[in-house]
Formats: sequence, C-alpha cells, structure tokens
Amino acid sequence: MSAENNAPVIVLVRPQLGENIGKAARAMLNFGLTELRMVAPRDGWPNPSAGPAAAGADEVLDKAQVFSTTAEAVADCAHIYATTVRKRGVTKPVLTPEQAANEIATQEGRSAIMFGAERSGLETEDVALARAILTVPINPEFGSLNLAQAVILAAYEWSKHRNLVMPPQEDLLPPAPQEELDGLIAHLDRMLEPKGYFLPESRAEASRRTMRNVLTKPGWNHLEVRTLRGILSSLEREDR
Amino acid sequence: MSAENNAPVIVLVRPQLGENIGKAARAMLNFGLTELRMVAPRDGWPNPSAGPAAAGADEVLDKAQVFSTTAEAVADCAHIYATTVRKRGVTKPVLTPEQAANEIATQEGRSAIMFGAERSGLETEDVALARAILTVPINPEFGSLNLAQAVILAAYEWSKHRNLVMPPQEDLLPPAPQEELDGLIAHLDRMLEPKGYFLPESRAEASRRTMRNVLTKPGWNHLEVRTLRGILSSLEREDR
Repeated sequence: MSAENNAPVIVLVRPQLGENIGKAARAMLNFGLTELRMVAPRDGWPNPSAGPAAAGADEVLDKAQVFSTTAEAVADCAHIYATTVRKRGVTKPVLTPEQAANEIATQEGRSAIMFGAERSGLETEDVALARAILTVPINPEFGSLNLAQAVILAAYEWSKHRNLVMPPQEDLLPPAPQEELDGLIAHLDRMLEPKGYFLPESRAEASRRTMRNVLTKPGWNHLEVRTLRGILSSLEREDR
Repeated sequence: MSAENNAPVIVLVRPQLGENIGKAARAMLNFGLTELRMVAPRDGWPNPSAGPAAAGADEVLDKAQVFSTTAEAVADCAHIYATTVRKRGVTKPVLTPEQAANEIATQEGRSAIMFGAERSGLETEDVALARAILTVPINPEFGSLNLAQAVILAAYEWSKHRNLVMPPQEDLLPPAPQEELDGLIAHLDRMLEPKGYFLPESRAEASRRTMRNVLTKPGWNHLEVRTLRGILSSLEREDR
C-alpha cells in the first residue's frame, strides 16, 4: 500500500463556526488531506462562511460529508484518534501529533482524527469511540490552540510521511471497521439488558461507556470480532 | 546551555494586519515562545486589532519590540532564518521547520526566524540577511499558509526540544497480572462448555487457543478485567 492511501479522515464533531470549518479545510489541503467529515455542524451545511475562509480549498468543502452522530462518521475507520487535552480518568494511550502520524502512516486500515467543538471539545462519548488520544504538547501556562491550528498540526505531521513508502505489514490485520465493533457491542448490550446489568438506570450510561472503552481498547480485527460474536451467540443458546 | 535559553526570536517583517500580529503572538505563546519583534508594521504599533486576536497572549504583545529596518531587528542574533517559499537564484541551505528547530535547539547563540508580509513575503534584501531559508513543505498544488500558520509550525517544531513535553500518564494502568486474565478466561470457558461451544471435541483445543489469543491481545488492566468478570456474572443470571 502506498503511504498516500493512508491519508487520515478529518472529523469535526459539532463544529460551531463556518469560518473555522473553512480554515480547517485550508489547513488540510495545505498538507494534502482532502477527506473532511462533520458531525452535526451547529449551523447546518453548507455554510456560506466556510468558503471564503477556505481560501481556495473548495474541493475539500465540496466533498465534505455530514453525519448526525460521531459513531456514523467513523463507522468505516479502523483507527480512531480523539484530539483533546488530557482528561482525568481517560485510560487510553496519549500520543503527540508526531506519534499519531507515525502510526497513521504505517498501519493498515483507515484512520480518522476527531476534533471537538471550538468551545467545549469532544464529549466523553466521542472519546469513548477512540483507541487513542491525540494531544498537542502545549505551553502549560497558556494553552489555547484553536480548531484550525490543531488540524494543521495533525495534517503537517502526517504530510511528513507522504513520500516515504513504508514496508507493508500484511500479516498484521488492521482493527475491524468501527461498525463491526459496534455490532459486537450492541450484541452484548442486548444480552445484558434483560439481566439488569444496566440497572440502576442512573448508572446505565456510565456502564455502557465503560463497556465500550474496554471493548475498544483491544483493536480486534475482523476475524477476532467474528470469533467474539460466535462466543456471544453460543452463550445465548440453551445448555446442551 | 539549556534548551530554554535557545528560544528563537520571531521577527515579523512589515506585517500588515494587527489581527495577524495577534494570532502570531498566540501561536508563539502556545509553544512557549515570547520574544516578538516587528519591522515597520504597516499600521504602526501598538495596533488595537492585535490584542483580541492574541486571545490572552498579551505578555507577548506587551514586550514586543519595533524596529525600522530588518537589519536592526536581527542585529543581536547569530543565526537568522528567512521563512519563504523557495526562490530562484537563492543559494542558501533550505531547511524544513523540523531541521531548523533541530539547529536552533542545539546551537550556541541567539536565533531569529523572520516572516514576511502577508501578501508579498520577505524581500530579497531581507533574505540576504539570513544564512538559511526555512520552507514548510506544502501541497504543491495548493500552497497558501498564512502568517500565523507559518509561525505556529516553526514554534511547534521548536517546542519539541523543550523538556516539558507530554503530561504524565499516571492513570494508565498496566495489564492485569496473568492470573487475573486466566481467571477471566476460565470463567468464560465454564460458561461456554455446557453450550457446546467447544464441540466437536477435535476442535476444542484450537477454539480455546483462539479464545485465549483474542482475550490476551487487549492487555486489559485490573479494573477492566473486573468489569468483564461483572459482565460474565451478569450474563449467568436469570432474566429479571
């Protein structure tokens, strides 16, 4: 596979200003990234403020896709990175843009880098979809990267790998697409629900998030997910 | 010499918009650079548009110095880099931001990185002051880095050489001891056995090995294994 095919998808989750979407598109195209996805942009899409801010990166905006949930936006991706300042209690690997770019350029399977809303960043549920956190190491006394700046640093680091052709790692299967993992999680959820696992109701959301985090961490490939689906189906059966 | 003392001076030569000066200051401070110099800013100095765009990086603006010529602005610097797209006939070394940062962090003497006006960039006479050219490798079909973006990439690369890099990851727990993983596998095995999952007998060993491989891959920590034991116990219960 050529490194060119490893270009990550950039996912803007609930972006607020069209201007910032345009700037992000410009930052992407400067470094050769063209696939932009948005989750529920606040002011709808298309947004008339995006074009002027894109300063010519119209091809990125024209083919941008809009999704209503973050899960749908990354459903076909095998490697999902959540860009965020570090949060307490998140037990996922934290990578620099450089480390993430090194992974993205060399691993099999599509990668997505998610960026949160301008003010609030990514929600905990968005982060739960990711196996790793991307954090820009920043001046601890003055940290205020804006959206387009975060995008440009990720794109810039990725671009360093563009002309290098990395040795293929065919024997290491990539993580299954997110939709297969989601299928596994939904299957287990359906089995647990009648057992009262998610009770009391007040704890249900946290329990589901914990479960998703635990099952996201492995990066199971297609075959492994299939094995686990088989195990779940087996557990559902009556004793022989 | 500590890397901290090697912070380069950022020199904006004939910047046009106060807003861009403010954004450059913000980009600098994000990555720990504080010394801003300007050569003949078009609209004079101070500029009321700079403050709001600096988004809190006032300390950089407050101590910014203004010079009337580029030569004066870099007079006390030993290493001068001119940020520009490569020009015909310039016979100086051309460095990426990364290569320039590596030099700046390790060499003796003050360094300055010069950036030209928004529209026209650095003049030939400005470039003549520099021993090296700093060029950001950019999409050849779409190159339009703005001033603040060029500044942030230079500052970001320099910041990699500072010591305060990533926040510690103290809450990233190590994988659980093997006996805990074995307990989880045995628990699942006990549940699957009566369902006939390991039949026919001739496939039992391979099935158990596959299951162990799938459950070993994640490197789940103590808490995650405990969560999964809870899920299995819940599945064993009668429906509520």
